[in-house]
Amino acid sequence: MLDFEFCNPTKILFGRGTVAKLDGEIPSSARVLILYGGESARRAGTLDEVIQALGEREIHEFGGIEANPTFETLMDAVELVRREKIDFLLAVGGGSVIDGVKFVAAAVSYEGDPWELVESGGKDIGSAVSFGSVLTLSATGSEMNSISVISRKETQAKLAFASPHVFPQFSILDPSKTFTLPARQVANGIVDAFSHVIEQYLTYPVEARVQDRFAEGLMQTLIEIAPKAMEEPPDYDARANLMWVATLALNGLIGAGVPQDWASHRIGHELTALYSIDHARTLAVVMPSLLNVCRGTKKAKLLQYGERIWNITEGEDDERIDKAITKSRGFFEEVGLKTRMSDYDLGPEAIDDVLRQLETHDMVVMGERDDITLDVSRRILEGAL
Amino acid sequence: MLDFEFCNPTKILFGRGTVAKLDGEIPSSARVLILYGGESARRAGTLDEVIQALGEREIHEFGGIEANPTFETLMDAVELVRREKIDFLLAVGGGSVIDGVKFVAAAVSYEGDPWELVESGGKDIGSAVSFGSVLTLSATGSEMNSISVISRKETQAKLAFASPHVFPQFSILDPSKTFTLPARQVANGIVDAFSHVIEQYLTYPVEARVQDRFAEGLMQTLIEIAPKAMEEPPDYDARANLMWVATLALNGLIGAGVPQDWASHRIGHELTALYSIDHARTLAVVMPSLLNVCRGTKKAKLLQYGERIWNITEGEDDERIDKAITKSRGFFEEVGLKTRMSDYDLGPEAIDDVLRQLETHDMVVMGERDDITLDVSRRILEGAL
Repeated sequence: MLDFEFCNPTKILFGRGTVAKLDGEIPSSARVLILYGGESARRAGTLDEVIQALGEREIHEFGGIEANPTFETLMDAVELVRREKIDFLLAVGGGSVIDGVKFVAAAVSYEGDPWELVESGGKDIGSAVSFGSVLTLSATGSEMNSISVISRKETQAKLAFASPHVFPQFSILDPSKTFTLPARQVANGIVDAFSHVIEQYLTYPVEARVQDRFAEGLMQTLIEIAPKAMEEPPDYDARANLMWVATLALNGLIGAGVPQDWASHRIGHELTALYSIDHARTLAVVMPSLLNVCRGTKKAKLLQYGERIWNITEGEDDERIDKAITKSRGFFEEVGLKTRMSDYDLGPEAIDDVLRQLETHDMVVMGERDDITLDVSRRILEGAL
Repeated sequence: MLDFEFCNPTKILFGRGTVAKLDGEIPSSARVLILYGGESARRAGTLDEVIQALGEREIHEFGGIEANPTFETLMDAVELVRREKIDFLLAVGGGSVIDGVKFVAAAVSYEGDPWELVESGGKDIGSAVSFGSVLTLSATGSEMNSISVISRKETQAKLAFASPHVFPQFSILDPSKTFTLPARQVANGIVDAFSHVIEQYLTYPVEARVQDRFAEGLMQTLIEIAPKAMEEPPDYDARANLMWVATLALNGLIGAGVPQDWASHRIGHELTALYSIDHARTLAVVMPSLLNVCRGTKKAKLLQYGERIWNITEGEDDERIDKAITKSRGFFEEVGLKTRMSDYDLGPEAIDDVLRQLETHDMVVMGERDDITLDVSRRILEGAL
């Protein structure tokens, strides 16, 4: 097992009706800014419920945070927070809204250009406004971690930062709040959570047996519940399991003490930034090809994955790895996510553009062994056409 | 899945050489009291290493905390903390020392009789002195939870309390610090951790799929590593896995959103208080019998446990449950813990004494369905003779 530090102070309030608990989690004198995405939060009734739970507190609202939250939009929220002397932020939405709120929280008291906080990967963050979240979409795990991904329209950049200052103080996880989601978003969430596990699991063995078992347990659960989680009318238990799996897939626990990859995410971020493809869909495209290209260095874990997740125990190693990758691709396709660049109208000409962006963002050595160079990224993209 | 709240703010610093990180975790102006058990902490060199890491800070020491820490001993530490105006406590030891420090931390500023804090189950705890731990024994999980078990010699009581005020601020987990442990304590730790999982897992199904998979992952890991964890010379990775499993077995995570039993622990506590049998050994005695007596209400989970942990897939339900219980008993015996009261020189005459103590401590309805009455406890003890 590798050495690690782990600390995750976010309080989770899980279950039906937990929005009412907001009152006990936010200081009664707080000046609260509620941040959300589109109007679905209002239509579904969640915004009203939140406002009711906040009672007599002074409330401001900021809507319109995009699916890939942009620096440009968020800076308007930063101005609002400064102007109105807001002292508590409340994200109502999915990972994009929560990611956006993390940026706002960190930017408010920063004296330089807040984009530096993103470019520095979060290292320059010295403090943040307190914030919590009401989760309405299971996918990114942002509700219980200190990571945020922000896009900048101006430069077509999509970059991640992390800081211990941006853990949510609490997150309200009421699975019934996901009942009104379109099927596309539920499917994206399943693949996003699955991919988060893969990034922290499919590397090389370091005798981290618990982390492996936990990662496998998350993937097994996702595979078991996926069909039911997508059914209408929505099934509470399936959505509850999806919600808790997605949270645990990226709250630091399964990644503690193990090597991590994240190259699929980085390449995927460029595809989203350049071509506006849903985040999860970029992962469905990149990851099967990456596993194939990196089958040598990932061999031991690919065999373990095949055996424990897909029950592949027969055949030569390469044959078993082929099957495991095919199964993964099949799982993504079954929940409705296409896994080829051509499915999103992208041909070979896109590859140079993606590579150029990777180079611009200094993503020239990636992966758990720092061996995914631009040349390897090219082969991954070629294999994903 | 049941509704739940989960929050665990303890910072874990895991790996070789992490004692040196103490300096960064404790305020440099702190007046520190180091609390420990026997002289093994000094002989193994851990105390010296801790003192060196604390540098120029004012340090006091309090040794002699027992394997089942007593109110009587701990009150001496409380007096010392008050007298010397200590503002940071550092536990160096296993679960008993950490449990003891939790009591001391909570008792210092309590104005009534501190035993009330234990008797109230922790409800009366309003604040606690900050504390951290350097773990030297993998077993109880106390290093990352808010639970403590304290004994009182005067009344032969052994009672648990819990409070969000007594989470360790940090815990240093260096697996190599367990290398000097006697085999008996390593074996006890394995069974203790395994039993913690069982208490939170072997109840009834509530569609908490992740919690089940995580619980199963912890048990599978314990079974896999047990032989190697007991080997001499000690194997780092086996001890590292044991340490992390034991921590995760009782840090609140696998118990969130599921029913919990804990009757084996409560009955076991009486056996320890009355007859000074090691905690883990009482669990090895009580648990197989409890599973047998409660096989009706625990049926679905016993079958799942048998199948997923012991690969028992053939035969009638009762036959499969028999096998699963036999396998559990066998596992305890294989690591060296006897599983019958007679192995500890206890006969039928002990049963009435245990039941009387259970009644005194108001343990008259226990288990996940509140159906373990004194009569059921009698049958469990009779089955454990």
